[in-house]
Amino acid sequence: MSSTPLSSTRRTSLGRLKERAATDRAALHEILDAGRICHLGVVIDGSPRVVPTGYGHSGDTLYLHGSTGASSLLAGPSQEICVTVTHVDGLVLARSLFHHSVNYRSAMIYGTPRRLTDPDEKLTGLRAITERLVPGQWDVARPPNPKELAATTVLALSLEEASVKVRQGPPGDDEEDYALDLWAGVLPVREVFGDPVPDPRLRPGIPAPAHVTSMVGPTAVPSEAAGQA
Amino acid sequence: MSSTPLSSTRRTSLGRLKERAATDRAALHEILDAGRICHLGVVIDGSPRVVPTGYGHSGDTLYLHGSTGASSLLAGPSQEICVTVTHVDGLVLARSLFHHSVNYRSAMIYGTPRRLTDPDEKLTGLRAITERLVPGQWDVARPPNPKELAATTVLALSLEEASVKVRQGPPGDDEEDYALDLWAGVLPVREVFGDPVPDPRLRPGIPAPAHVTSMVGPTAVPSEAAGQA
Repeated sequence: MSSTPLSSTRRTSLGRLKERAATDRAALHEILDAGRICHLGVVIDGSPRVVPTGYGHSGDTLYLHGSTGASSLLAGPSQEICVTVTHVDGLVLARSLFHHSVNYRSAMIYGTPRRLTDPDEKLTGLRAITERLVPGQWDVARPPNPKELAATTVLALSLEEASVKVRQGPPGDDEEDYALDLWAGVLPVREVFGDPVPDPRLRPGIPAPAHVTSMVGPTAVPSEAAGQA
Repeated sequence: MSSTPLSSTRRTSLGRLKERAATDRAALHEILDAGRICHLGVVIDGSPRVVPTGYGHSGDTLYLHGSTGASSLLAGPSQEICVTVTHVDGLVLARSLFHHSVNYRSAMIYGTPRRLTDPDEKLTGLRAITERLVPGQWDVARPPNPKELAATTVLALSLEEASVKVRQGPPGDDEEDYALDLWAGVLPVREVFGDPVPDPRLRPGIPAPAHVTSMVGPTAVPSEAAGQA
């Protein structure tokens, strides 16, 4: 994991709450490593559109994919996009309503993506996206055939211009409010995988593989996210 | 809950996979009722920006808030925004990599927000946002004072132009792939609240209130989200 400082273009330098900007490239990769879904922002006819979609990353490149007919991806190659990955770690209950907040980790990546045309490079991107969703699936599932590959748009976006915002720890109340007779603290939030549900058309005698069953249970969450300062 | 059909402007009429578009306004409200965080898309200097933030809704209005200095909110009142709320319900593992997918519920709302100036209307919006985060907090925490209220931007966005996309159920493989000797199914995903973590500065003898402790455990997830067709 690299420790190169993040970019500091105007929009990736936070205008406020600078203490929440972790200017470490390692933090960017940690956030991407912990997620499966991003929110892709594009501009269509001058207006913003925000679409949830899967992503993958490898080295300094983030990959997105979709149908060749997806308007959100068609808009991408000709112009800038913004990709945001967010983890909600806790609800922050302060004594004052004003200081209620959310503990979260968020990464935003800006850039003009490149539409991949080389089949090998497209497969590299699709592998990264699949392995982000369920590590281990790429090597067991039936690979894309040429027709499926042709029907899939894969975009590559440099991770160069990015920003990271993190809020962790207990509420930060106004000094006089600490005397109030009110509970305050953090309600931790985490993502949990339930037991795998077999496809109703699954052939008999095929158990869920270990790389799937091993995901069941709570996903990792940084200890400081639970509210410890 | 209303059952008015959703809008059908060009961008809210899906260009593909129309079967995933639930054209029922009730579905929009169900998705908003189940979330706490949205992704707000704005256009700044011609480029998209996607920011995670809290939201609330009441009737046909969605509310957003932030510091008066937040550039993402400052961009809003003069131009269109897009607000997307997404729930990930399951990872869909197909026999072919091509048909891997995600079970999700997503709502997108478009419009030009109105910046609230009337203090009572701002309080209505802030109450909706707080009660979405942790129901019950508005009535117990210390209310905003005039200075705090003045330092908070509250935007109101009509829910009129919206679209809903839902994908649920088992994988949809190509017919010939069902004969493969591969596991397929859905790995359910849900959000879970852990035990409340008291603020280190909490005064002794103040227990977490019932409206907080009652949130601990798995949040509701529609039964069909687990992969049942």
